[in-house]
Amino acid sequence: MPDTNRQWILAARPHGLITPDVLQLQESSVPAVEDGQALARVKYLSIDPTMRIWMADIPQYMPPVQLGEVMRSFGLGEIVESRHHDFKKGDKVMGLTGLQTFVAITGKEARTFQKLPSIPFLSDINFLGTLGVNGLTAYFGLLDVAKPQPGETLVVSAAAGVGQLGKIHGCRVVGIAGSDEKCQWIKGELGFDAAINYKHRDWKAQLVATTPAGIDINFENVGGEIMQAVLDRMNLHGRVVLCGLISGYSKEDPALSSFGQVLIKRLRVEGFIVLDYASKFMDAGKQLGMWKMTGRLKDKQTVVKGLEKAPEAINMLFRGDNVGKLVVEL
Amino acid sequence: MPDTNRQWILAARPHGLITPDVLQLQESSVPAVEDGQALARVKYLSIDPTMRIWMADIPQYMPPVQLGEVMRSFGLGEIVESRHHDFKKGDKVMGLTGLQTFVAITGKEARTFQKLPSIPFLSDINFLGTLGVNGLTAYFGLLDVAKPQPGETLVVSAAAGVGQLGKIHGCRVVGIAGSDEKCQWIKGELGFDAAINYKHRDWKAQLVATTPAGIDINFENVGGEIMQAVLDRMNLHGRVVLCGLISGYSKEDPALSSFGQVLIKRLRVEGFIVLDYASKFMDAGKQLGMWKMTGRLKDKQTVVKGLEKAPEAINMLFRGDNVGKLVVEL
Repeated sequence: MPDTNRQWILAARPHGLITPDVLQLQESSVPAVEDGQALARVKYLSIDPTMRIWMADIPQYMPPVQLGEVMRSFGLGEIVESRHHDFKKGDKVMGLTGLQTFVAITGKEARTFQKLPSIPFLSDINFLGTLGVNGLTAYFGLLDVAKPQPGETLVVSAAAGVGQLGKIHGCRVVGIAGSDEKCQWIKGELGFDAAINYKHRDWKAQLVATTPAGIDINFENVGGEIMQAVLDRMNLHGRVVLCGLISGYSKEDPALSSFGQVLIKRLRVEGFIVLDYASKFMDAGKQLGMWKMTGRLKDKQTVVKGLEKAPEAINMLFRGDNVGKLVVEL
Repeated sequence: MPDTNRQWILAARPHGLITPDVLQLQESSVPAVEDGQALARVKYLSIDPTMRIWMADIPQYMPPVQLGEVMRSFGLGEIVESRHHDFKKGDKVMGLTGLQTFVAITGKEARTFQKLPSIPFLSDINFLGTLGVNGLTAYFGLLDVAKPQPGETLVVSAAAGVGQLGKIHGCRVVGIAGSDEKCQWIKGELGFDAAINYKHRDWKAQLVATTPAGIDINFENVGGEIMQAVLDRMNLHGRVVLCGLISGYSKEDPALSSFGQVLIKRLRVEGFIVLDYASKFMDAGKQLGMWKMTGRLKDKQTVVKGLEKAPEAINMLFRGDNVGKLVVEL
């Protein structure tokens, strides 16, 4: 086992994309394991839009990462040493590992780590995607917040899982994505009713054409111009699950849009962060796992190899260069 | 009885405030009353922010007023002639009279007119304010959409009724208004806990100081910068009743704000238009009338005299020159 830990430290707050001054790679000793602690070697890092929020010094749903701290991230690891009663060597765990090769699981942090059950047909990486933050976000955001009804039209940007759950619940699903490859995947393989590449010049006309009965549910991950175009198509009393504003995270300006349509159409817009549903994760995970095992949920991963690539992976996410769940494999 | 009807016709769509080309005063004959019809002489016109929406050629909750049509408005009148079984001479009625001196109540429009009951202590004008659109909007927006709990902090801009209902339901109420006179009224006479004049340079600091426990409910009538400042102070899982965006109606730009706080704080924002609650107006009116009669609801009116002043009255509304309910008396 190596005795050095490699860590990405937040060195400066980003403006726009992640420039080389924002994260600094640092080496330190692998922490010694004391009574009540465990040590995990990180296997996969989950690259998520929310990391961009955590980097910013603004009020948010968790404290922002402080300058000098290891950059926060979800990840999946394996216990290599344990003096904690909940974990034993070889256990696979998921939680806020941070962008580093080893993570010390101390008393306080133990609560945020969860042991992975061993489920046939599921690979480790599924626990970061379909059964992880992405899957749980789709599950609670769509089913608990939007409550889709059969026959309703659901539009979703940048979220393959939400669209598949929408299909399972009988919705007409239109996906918005940033490449023809992604569009092919969500329409051809995932069974979306339509897919729109927002980089095509006529994408707004396509949105109109593919939502002939208007839009009942908008699962919003992007914000800005795309959000506005969807709001313009929404039906009276539609629901907007405001899950992300990724187009705003990497810009200086906040994600501005017009509240005019919300008023005129009496929409309900709800901000949504999956951690609020933590107490129900286990039940949701079982349901998602069942759908995954029976082939009703499909997933894809974009795997970037090597901890040193983590900052670049974050930028890939904001440029939309990934298809499916983006992870860094260590 | 005069035999001419005077009518304000929508002649051009406004950009910003109402300029002289937008509405044109026209004379026509008072309509003859046929079988199944009634004729009312208009006594009061209700001047409401939504009129600015009706003038714009944008998708909205009712068809926009067409060029050449009488400008739509709520109003109160007295039946001067009737061949309709629901109305008799002398009845007072409330409904969409339009900006004119006489309104023909034909079969189709009869549904939109309501006879006023005779209630002690209530003057006619109360049916346009406390018991009219304003009162009903406050009632359903606050009680049905926001569902205030005792001890919660409610912030409301430009709506004396909402604040008083908030006090009745045990909230800490902070009002935002555009003059010291209005602030004095809502704090001194109506019992708001605090009142902030947004024209004072330090109004944002005052908002922070007067909402020490943050804001749980925002009853939004204004939009723009004021809305943003309130969103910035909101508590997790707060509720925003999006009732109006008056700051945007008289500008070219739509009412832009940031959805960032909605996401981070998991707010629920609901667009709200009181006409959706029409089937419950009678019950709400009884409750509002009771509160009014027992002195728990107070009101004020700004009365502008003469039909010819109607366009100027609309501009007064958008400049905030009125205190309380703004009506034109004919």
